[in-house]
Amino acid sequence: MTRGCWDCVVGVCDWGVDLDNDGLDNERVTWAVHEIAAHIGARVVGDDQLEVAGMGTLQNAMPGQLSFLAQPKYVKFLASTAASAVILHEQYCDQFKGVALVLDNPYLGYAKASHLFRQRRAMRSALIHPSALVSADAQLSGKVYVGPNVVIEAGARIGEGVDIGANVFIGRNTCIGANTTVNPNVVIYDGVSIGERVIIHSAAVIGADGFGFAPDQGRWQKIAQLGGVRIGNDVEIGAGTTIDRGAIDDTVLENGVILDNQVQIAHNVVIGKNTAIAGCSAIAGSSVVGECCTIAGGVGVVGHVTIVDHVHITAMTLVTKSISRPGSYSSGSGLSESGQWRKNVARFKQLDRMAKRLKVLEQAILDE
Amino acid sequence: MTRGCWDCVVGVCDWGVDLDNDGLDNERVTWAVHEIAAHIGARVVGDDQLEVAGMGTLQNAMPGQLSFLAQPKYVKFLASTAASAVILHEQYCDQFKGVALVLDNPYLGYAKASHLFRQRRAMRSALIHPSALVSADAQLSGKVYVGPNVVIEAGARIGEGVDIGANVFIGRNTCIGANTTVNPNVVIYDGVSIGERVIIHSAAVIGADGFGFAPDQGRWQKIAQLGGVRIGNDVEIGAGTTIDRGAIDDTVLENGVILDNQVQIAHNVVIGKNTAIAGCSAIAGSSVVGECCTIAGGVGVVGHVTIVDHVHITAMTLVTKSISRPGSYSSGSGLSESGQWRKNVARFKQLDRMAKRLKVLEQAILDE
Amino acid sequence: MTRGCWDCVVGVCDWGVDLDNDGLDNERVTWAVHEIAAHIGARVVGDDQLEVAGMGTLQNAMPGQLSFLAQPKYVKFLASTAASAVILHEQYCDQFKGVALVLDNPYLGYAKASHLFRQRRAMRSALIHPSALVSADAQLSGKVYVGPNVVIEAGARIGEGVDIGANVFIGRNTCIGANTTVNPNVVIYDGVSIGERVIIHSAAVIGADGFGFAPDQGRWQKIAQLGGVRIGNDVEIGAGTTIDRGAIDDTVLENGVILDNQVQIAHNVVIGKNTAIAGCSAIAGSSVVGECCTIAGGVGVVGHVTIVDHVHITAMTLVTKSISRPGSYSSGSGLSESGQWRKNVARFKQLDRMAKRLKVLEQAILDE
Repeated sequence: MTRGCWDCVVGVCDWGVDLDNDGLDNERVTWAVHEIAAHIGARVVGDDQLEVAGMGTLQNAMPGQLSFLAQPKYVKFLASTAASAVILHEQYCDQFKGVALVLDNPYLGYAKASHLFRQRRAMRSALIHPSALVSADAQLSGKVYVGPNVVIEAGARIGEGVDIGANVFIGRNTCIGANTTVNPNVVIYDGVSIGERVIIHSAAVIGADGFGFAPDQGRWQKIAQLGGVRIGNDVEIGAGTTIDRGAIDDTVLENGVILDNQVQIAHNVVIGKNTAIAGCSAIAGSSVVGECCTIAGGVGVVGHVTIVDHVHITAMTLVTKSISRPGSYSSGSGLSESGQWRKNVARFKQLDRMAKRLKVLEQAILDE
Repeated sequence: MTRGCWDCVVGVCDWGVDLDNDGLDNERVTWAVHEIAAHIGARVVGDDQLEVAGMGTLQNAMPGQLSFLAQPKYVKFLASTAASAVILHEQYCDQFKGVALVLDNPYLGYAKASHLFRQRRAMRSALIHPSALVSADAQLSGKVYVGPNVVIEAGARIGEGVDIGANVFIGRNTCIGANTTVNPNVVIYDGVSIGERVIIHSAAVIGADGFGFAPDQGRWQKIAQLGGVRIGNDVEIGAGTTIDRGAIDDTVLENGVILDNQVQIAHNVVIGKNTAIAGCSAIAGSSVVGECCTIAGGVGVVGHVTIVDHVHITAMTLVTKSISRPGSYSSGSGLSESGQWRKNVARFKQLDRMAKRLKVLEQAILDE
Repeated sequence: MTRGCWDCVVGVCDWGVDLDNDGLDNERVTWAVHEIAAHIGARVVGDDQLEVAGMGTLQNAMPGQLSFLAQPKYVKFLASTAASAVILHEQYCDQFKGVALVLDNPYLGYAKASHLFRQRRAMRSALIHPSALVSADAQLSGKVYVGPNVVIEAGARIGEGVDIGANVFIGRNTCIGANTTVNPNVVIYDGVSIGERVIIHSAAVIGADGFGFAPDQGRWQKIAQLGGVRIGNDVEIGAGTTIDRGAIDDTVLENGVILDNQVQIAHNVVIGKNTAIAGCSAIAGSSVVGECCTIAGGVGVVGHVTIVDHVHITAMTLVTKSISRPGSYSSGSGLSESGQWRKNVARFKQLDRMAKRLKVLEQAILDE
């Protein structure tokens, strides 16, 4: 049996690389409650020397695990949970017999604590896998991890602590900032700029051509997409998400933007700071989304509109025009049993006529 | 010209591997009608020694091909079809002059027969392609096919008869059951469990991080996604489909689930046995879909809802709440010519007011 | 540090390959206005010897750049733009002080000019990268570019001038016509036929199994997908787009079809010549879309319907039935503020009842 051996092709790593970039010990499996409390800013009620290993939900946690209570509807599980320690708000403290980690925002506490328990990256023995193809004209920081079969073209610059998974392609002159993680099989075209601490999940494609064509006697004349993509710091990009390069200017994701899976960002879109976009949503060309917006799943935003800061769009809404006031916006008909729905849809198609008939009746009554 | 030669890099396979895992002869091109009849459980009317090669629709079949009649609207093609043999229900037997394969469920018969005619996998000469990178700490069954540039990390376990296409990445501690097919460029993150006889199409991503973040003073604190993904037996996963790992517990697809292309399954979703989900649908976090449901294309299911068994959702419906009774459910406005649609949409936005005006009128009439 | 060196592994290319297939000089950065005018068919007003480098929008162009005016709403930027030359319609010529390139269709002129300024492909020193795995039974034209880690299986035929990016998989007996570009990490299954001058973006998957299953006592019996995919000339296929192979006959994209990112084309769909489909739209199985249609983003077309030529579908519409007349079609409820929307949706569910109450009132009035 012939096999390449991924673990042993090159020698042992000669510097202690913390591939998770979080300053945490890669070997730790259990944590003392006082350590967790310090990490999340909680006050301990009970034995703060208790060691916990792993997290569980209140319903499913096993003894020795840490859990959390962030929503009132789960209070009912608090008395009977097998969790040894629970992150919770002070008001529920007396309903739990185990060790409590008390703070004002238990959900945020859970979020921070979760990172202690994720599977740590094994210390890898290869820095740049010998099967990776890195252009001699690319600039790689000293401490990077480049996985097998990665291709990095000329002019690319890869910052310190960057982790590039297997089969990733990075095009010419693309820059990736420090401590960014690019998961396997991501494609980043040429001329893309990515910030620091960005996480890009598999099968995402960044910098493909925007969908720009001019009609020409019934056919389509392709417009060369001359712009790039600029992605800020602390951005997360989900699996299968696509972010097109700009037609002339760049497509832009500002700092702190989070995109779920299978999101489509068209050319020249600008997404403001800390905006979150859930799965399968699409923002059409040249539209501008403000800061701190939340866009639920399956939403469409048509092209060339502007959405101000602090706008919230509910699931599967189509945004057909600019939104100039913060608030929540929706479209759709609501869910119905199909038989009833069919009747109402038939009436929807008569709605304008119904409105006119209503008017006639009102006038008839009024005239009397 | 320098080229790696995929066909001849390693010696001839020393065991007769049936890469299609179906016990069928890989070299066969034609089949006698009696063999097909035995395979699908049909009764032959006519010459059961007739050999057929390939399948065609009633309209397009060529002489020497097998066809089928599963819908009454195609009966009109039966008299004139060039197909030499047709799978059909007894009631149409006398309308066809050729060889009939008669059974109660011709569509199921067609489904079973189709596998006789698909292009067989060539016997491959390499078991594990020399360019594949397999960790010394991964466990591979003796009879597996691992394609070029595949990366399999430590702790992975690959069952007998598994076929892994080119450029696939399989993360640490991921298990793949016997006779599963993973097509090229699939990514399976670490800690995923996949059953037997599963088919995963290209560019699917299994086990990427769920979209979990806690708001923190206008920014987003990432929540480490500690759960895995558990996929049962006889599951099919379409191209570009994404299935996220759980936040704490696992995301689960039970046995027999079939997902079309570009489906999005968020963290901690549970999909019940034999449920089918068509293309571009998305199930948001922690929702539970029952058994034997059919979800049409472009459907959205919001997070944290439960759908019971035997529910059918029509295309592009948004499921906004739990569904507690089997049946068919829909949303949307129905298709209209755009000009008329615009008028009705304008009225939709007045609908609540219209309802109140109607009430006023009714009272006015009533008062008289 | 071990690295494969992508630039220098093989000797210098011995023929002058124009990887952009457009007859343009790969080294040129600036173009004289008279050259641009000749390329796009414009008349020059001003210094036609002026050299320009790059394009900019009217608002953002820098001195030395070329811009264009295609929409009246941007006329206001014409007087103050820093662009040295502008493509525009004769009527705006006197409002611009710089060099004008005058023609009837400035948008088309911009489209053609844009190709002069896109980043040219560097002349690559490798024709077939040594890490590529090409079957000895595949036929490659003399002048092709095959990137690193590409796998090309037996029976494939690759035409002249084809450019295949890194990590692409091309299955058995698949044919790719001259001057087609396949970007990194694309997967093309076996038995697919692709025309000339096609552009396929990353993570697209062509020829995966259609979603065909027959119900069998509550379970799903897979139907082997025996058909292929036929794609014409001058087609563009966006990133993450999936095009399934046919069940028996082929799935077909005719010449000049353009598909944006994350489009889903199901088995046996036929898309007519020069039809454009925007991002995240899906066409279900066996539906036929005519020529010169435009389908906006997020549209769904159910299975087994026919849409005639010259039909335009607005964003996120669900096409539930065949369309037999050219025109524009829509569905959806329009965008509302969520609070108001909720009230109207509640009324939508009473719509059939409202219509009946209206009728009753009309009769009451009529009876008087």
